[in-house]
Amino acid sequence: MTVSTEKQPLNGVDTPTLFATLDAVRGQHDIAKFQFRATNRWVSGTHSRSTIHGFYGAMQEMEHSTPHVFDADHPAVLVGADNGPTPVEYVLHALAACLTAGIANIAAARNIKLTSVESTVEGDIDLLGILGLGEGVRNGFQGIKVSFKLAGDDPQKLRKVVEQSRARSAVYDIVTNGVPVEIAVEAG
Amino acid sequence: MTVSTEKQPLNGVDTPTLFATLDAVRGQHDIAKFQFRATNRWVSGTHSRSTIHGFYGAMQEMEHSTPHVFDADHPAVLVGADNGPTPVEYVLHALAACLTAGIANIAAARNIKLTSVESTVEGDIDLLGILGLGEGVRNGFQGIKVSFKLAGDDPQKLRKVVEQSRARSAVYDIVTNGVPVEIAVEAG
Repeated sequence: MTVSTEKQPLNGVDTPTLFATLDAVRGQHDIAKFQFRATNRWVSGTHSRSTIHGFYGAMQEMEHSTPHVFDADHPAVLVGADNGPTPVEYVLHALAACLTAGIANIAAARNIKLTSVESTVEGDIDLLGILGLGEGVRNGFQGIKVSFKLAGDDPQKLRKVVEQSRARSAVYDIVTNGVPVEIAVEAG
Repeated sequence: MTVSTEKQPLNGVDTPTLFATLDAVRGQHDIAKFQFRATNRWVSGTHSRSTIHGFYGAMQEMEHSTPHVFDADHPAVLVGADNGPTPVEYVLHALAACLTAGIANIAAARNIKLTSVESTVEGDIDLLGILGLGEGVRNGFQGIKVSFKLAGDDPQKLRKVVEQSRARSAVYDIVTNGVPVEIAVEAG
């Protein structure tokens, strides 16, 4: 295997551009400072709608090619109108999507071919916490299980790719290690 | 103010059903054990697609009224095809939606009228972490700021509602305190 064949696009990943981006960031660390954003507007009851469009990165204001709009709500069993998934389900989706994007990138960088990546994410939650009925019961998930099923090159290499994706995943880090959150309120 | 007026629907929240649900859970704690789920399938490159449909709760398998499908991807500047928001942006949406649902519920339970709730969530991230280029730089957000703008009844009461929503939010707890995540891999 030569260096040039290692850098061909693979798994739908533009590997040459990926390596060029890494080189650019090595030369100018400020390129890597990003701010992502969502705006949310309450609709009614537990139903709200978020828009995701602009972000800051690579030393400039940027936008996704189109604004993305998402509804969240509680299901009827939780006294909502079921106009969308619950907020906690979006967290499970985010975790699966982040680990999967990492798997594709890392496999491409290592010249490992993927044919399929599927996952199921399950989060257990005891709602005694958010309902204020359980002393010592936390509000959030008590645990999350991600089950991956991958096909492609050598299974042992695929397992190592998943492990490296876990070690470099933004959402895995957020969800397992926590992030400081500041809340500002303007009321009137 | 009488007990009966406190329990009228308000803010689009079916307050009588909300209180009845609390009573039911007080009588049978197992009703409150839920499992939420997402399934994800890799499409190409950093693009993947999740489906959210079934969940377990109230001692039975349940489903949202319709399956919800979401695409996630990286933008071009991060060597993706921008087929959807990034995974980390979904986390910001989830946080805003969870706090906002709590605000509506808590305000209704306290007989406080809301006319509007808007929020912007900003998450700062240094991609040196996920790129493996920054010693000691974390992979996830370094900090998140949520800015709420509320209108309705007395501003002081609205501020207390936001504080109580924070204290009982599932996603706020997940994002600030972290959750144990187990990853299982089947490769072949």
